[in-house]
Amino acid sequence: MIVSPQSMSFSQPLPLRSGAAIRSYCLAYETYGTLNADRSNAVLICHALNASHHVAGVYEGQDKSEGWWDTMIGPGKPVDTDRFFVIGVNNLGSCFGSTGPMHVNPDTGKIYGADFPVVTVEDWVDAQARLLDGLGITTLAAVMGGSLGGMQALSWTLQYPARVWHAVVVASAPNLTAENIAFNEVARRAIVTDPDFHGGHFYEHGVVPKRGLRIARMIGHITYLSDDVMNEKFGRQLRERIIEPKPAAAVGQSALQPGGGDYLYSTQDIEFQIESYLRYQGDKFSEYFDANTYLLITRALDYFDPALRHNGNLARALAVATAKFLLVSFTTDWRFAPKRSREIVKALLDNKRDVSYAEIDAPHGHDAFLLEDARYLSVVRAYFDRIAKGAP
Amino acid sequence: MIVSPQSMSFSQPLPLRSGAAIRSYCLAYETYGTLNADRSNAVLICHALNASHHVAGVYEGQDKSEGWWDTMIGPGKPVDTDRFFVIGVNNLGSCFGSTGPMHVNPDTGKIYGADFPVVTVEDWVDAQARLLDGLGITTLAAVMGGSLGGMQALSWTLQYPARVWHAVVVASAPNLTAENIAFNEVARRAIVTDPDFHGGHFYEHGVVPKRGLRIARMIGHITYLSDDVMNEKFGRQLRERIIEPKPAAAVGQSALQPGGGDYLYSTQDIEFQIESYLRYQGDKFSEYFDANTYLLITRALDYFDPALRHNGNLARALAVATAKFLLVSFTTDWRFAPKRSREIVKALLDNKRDVSYAEIDAPHGHDAFLLEDARYLSVVRAYFDRIAKGAP
Repeated sequence: MIVSPQSMSFSQPLPLRSGAAIRSYCLAYETYGTLNADRSNAVLICHALNASHHVAGVYEGQDKSEGWWDTMIGPGKPVDTDRFFVIGVNNLGSCFGSTGPMHVNPDTGKIYGADFPVVTVEDWVDAQARLLDGLGITTLAAVMGGSLGGMQALSWTLQYPARVWHAVVVASAPNLTAENIAFNEVARRAIVTDPDFHGGHFYEHGVVPKRGLRIARMIGHITYLSDDVMNEKFGRQLRERIIEPKPAAAVGQSALQPGGGDYLYSTQDIEFQIESYLRYQGDKFSEYFDANTYLLITRALDYFDPALRHNGNLARALAVATAKFLLVSFTTDWRFAPKRSREIVKALLDNKRDVSYAEIDAPHGHDAFLLEDARYLSVVRAYFDRIAKGAP
Repeated sequence: MIVSPQSMSFSQPLPLRSGAAIRSYCLAYETYGTLNADRSNAVLICHALNASHHVAGVYEGQDKSEGWWDTMIGPGKPVDTDRFFVIGVNNLGSCFGSTGPMHVNPDTGKIYGADFPVVTVEDWVDAQARLLDGLGITTLAAVMGGSLGGMQALSWTLQYPARVWHAVVVASAPNLTAENIAFNEVARRAIVTDPDFHGGHFYEHGVVPKRGLRIARMIGHITYLSDDVMNEKFGRQLRERIIEPKPAAAVGQSALQPGGGDYLYSTQDIEFQIESYLRYQGDKFSEYFDANTYLLITRALDYFDPALRHNGNLARALAVATAKFLLVSFTTDWRFAPKRSREIVKALLDNKRDVSYAEIDAPHGHDAFLLEDARYLSVVRAYFDRIAKGAP
C-alpha cells in the first residue's frame, strides 16, 4: 500500500484546557481506503509518544518506510482498509508535520520552542474532531489507539459520545500512576537540565539537547520492555568485541566476535549487550525527536485523568460514553499493566456498557501493542469484522 | 549508643580482579560491642550503594546521625551489640572515608578521579578480609548485608568459606538482570555525559556533575520503591502551592496549601508531589555523593556473577560455601525480586546447605530492607539468637 501524507490548515483558534489557545495551526494526516457513500466507515487512529500520522503503508519509492501500525492496518489486515476508511493524524505539539514547538508562533514571529502551549489529550481530541469536520466525517465507526493513543480513544467517547460507535483502547490506562509520572519526570529533567536545552529555545542557538534526549529515550525503552523479554533478548550477554584479526587467520573471518566471558573492567565502555542496545536507541532518537515535544507529550500523559472532575470516580466519569468498547492489555506490560485496563472495563460495566476485553499473554511488555502477535491481531480482527457487519 | 569512626591503613598492594592493583589504601570502619575472649562473636556488615561504615549508633553531640542500619543493630536490637562485636566498613572506591576516586593516586601525585581502578565485590571482600586480619579476627560469627551488601556476604562464603559461620543475605540477588543493568547504565550515562563530568576529572575544574547525579538518584529512587507504596505515598497528589496570603486572612495561616485540583499546565514546574519528592532526593544526593564512586559501585553490581565461571550454574558456584545461611526478601521488591533470592536458596539446597529463608510481605519495595518492619526484624533477631546460642 503506497500512501502519502497530507495537511489541513485551521485558521479558527483552538481553545486549550490550559486557558490558552492556538491561533492557527495545521495537522498532518494520512488516509487509507475509501470513505463509503454514507460516510459510516471511518476509523481514526490516535498515536502515542513518538509516533505520527504515518500509521500504515509505505511512501513511494521507500520500501522500508512502513507505518508504525502496519501489522494492524492495511488491505486484508485486522483493520482492513478494503472495508474501512482509516485516518492517521499527527497531534498538535508533535514534531512530524503538525504545528509544534519547532514552528513559528504567528503572534511573535519567532519559533515557539518552550512557549508552545501545553496541550492535553482533550485538546488533541478537539483538534482531531475539527480534522474530521474538514473531511466531512460526522461519525466514526471506530476510534483506536494504544498507550497514550488509547487515552485519546477513551477521551473521544467522553468528549464526543455521539460521534463514536466503537472505541478500541489498547495497552492503556485511565490515568498515570505515581511511578509512571516519576519516569516521565526523570526524562524531562534530563532534557531540561541539559545545558543545550537553553530553556527550550535551543533552536536559536543551533544546538539540540541530545544528551537529555538520549537519557529520556533510554529510560523510556526500559519501561517499554518486560524484564523477561530483556533477559531473553540480552540477559547478561557481553557486547561484541572488535578483535584485531591476526594476519594469518584473518582471511574470511569476521572481526566481530562475541565477548569471551571476560570483562573489560570499565565504567564507561560498553560491557553488556543491553548497554549497547540502549545507547543505540538513545542516539537514534536524539537525531530526530524534538525535545520540547517530548516535554509536551509526557505532560499530556501525566495530565490525563477523566475521573479527576468526578472525585476520582471513574465509573461516573465514563457514564457519558455511549460507544461500544474493545479493551486489550498485555500480561507483561508493567508500564500500563492489565489491572489498569481492568479499571476501565469495570467502570464501563458499572455503566452497563457493551465491553469486550482481551488480556493477551505476551512476553514483550508495553511494546507488545506494536508487535505482531497472532492472538492479539485476531482479537482486533474479530472486533472489526463485527463492526463491519453490524455498523449502523 | 555513641560511636566514632576509625581508619586502618594498608601498605601491601591489593591485587584486583581487573588485573590492576591498589598500591596503598586505607579503610574507614566502625565497631560496636566487644570482641569476646575467643574472638568468636564478630559480625561484619557490608554496605550497599550509597551507605558507609556508619552502620549504627550516633556520633557524639549529633543526635540525628543514626547509622544506616540503626533499626537492626545496637544494644538489645536484632543484631545485639551486647552479644556481638559488629564491624562496619566503608568499601574501597566509596566516598565516605576509605580510599576512593577523590583521593590522591600515590603513583601520580594527582587525584584519582576516573583513573581509580574498577573494583568488584570480590575485591571488596578481599579488602574486608585484610581489615579483619588487622583487627585480629580470623573467623566471623556472621557476615551480613542487604542488596549489594548481600552480594558481598554471599561472596564471603565463596572466597573465604572457612572464615564465615553464617551469612545473612537480605534483598539481594545472585547477579543483576538485564533490566537492573539497564537502569545502572542510564544513570551512568547521565553522569558521564554531564558536561561538568570532564571525563571523570571534574575535581581539577572545581565543579561537580550535579545534573547527572540528580538524574541517577531519581532513577535509583524509582527502583527502590514499589509501585504500590508510591501510589499510597504520592499517588496523583498535586504539589503544595505557595498561595499569596491575603492580608486579612493571613494571620496564623500557613502560606503553604495543598494543591486545589487544578493543574498549572507547565512542562517544567513541579505539578505532582512525586516530582517534588524526586527532585529533592536528587538535589540532596548531588550535594554529597561522588560521581566516580557512583560509576564504580554500579559497575561492581553489574559485574557480580559468581556463576559466570561455572557456565551459569549457580549450584556449582555455591558448592564451595560451608556457612549456614539466612536469606530474606520482600514481596514488593521489583529491583531484587524474591525469585532472585529463591535462586540462591535453591542453589544452596542443591548443595544440602543449612538455609533459612523468609519472604516478608512488606509494601515498601527494595527499600524495605532498611526500614522497620516487625516481622523482618524478628526473623533476623531469631536467627542471631540461634547464632549466639549455637556459635561454635
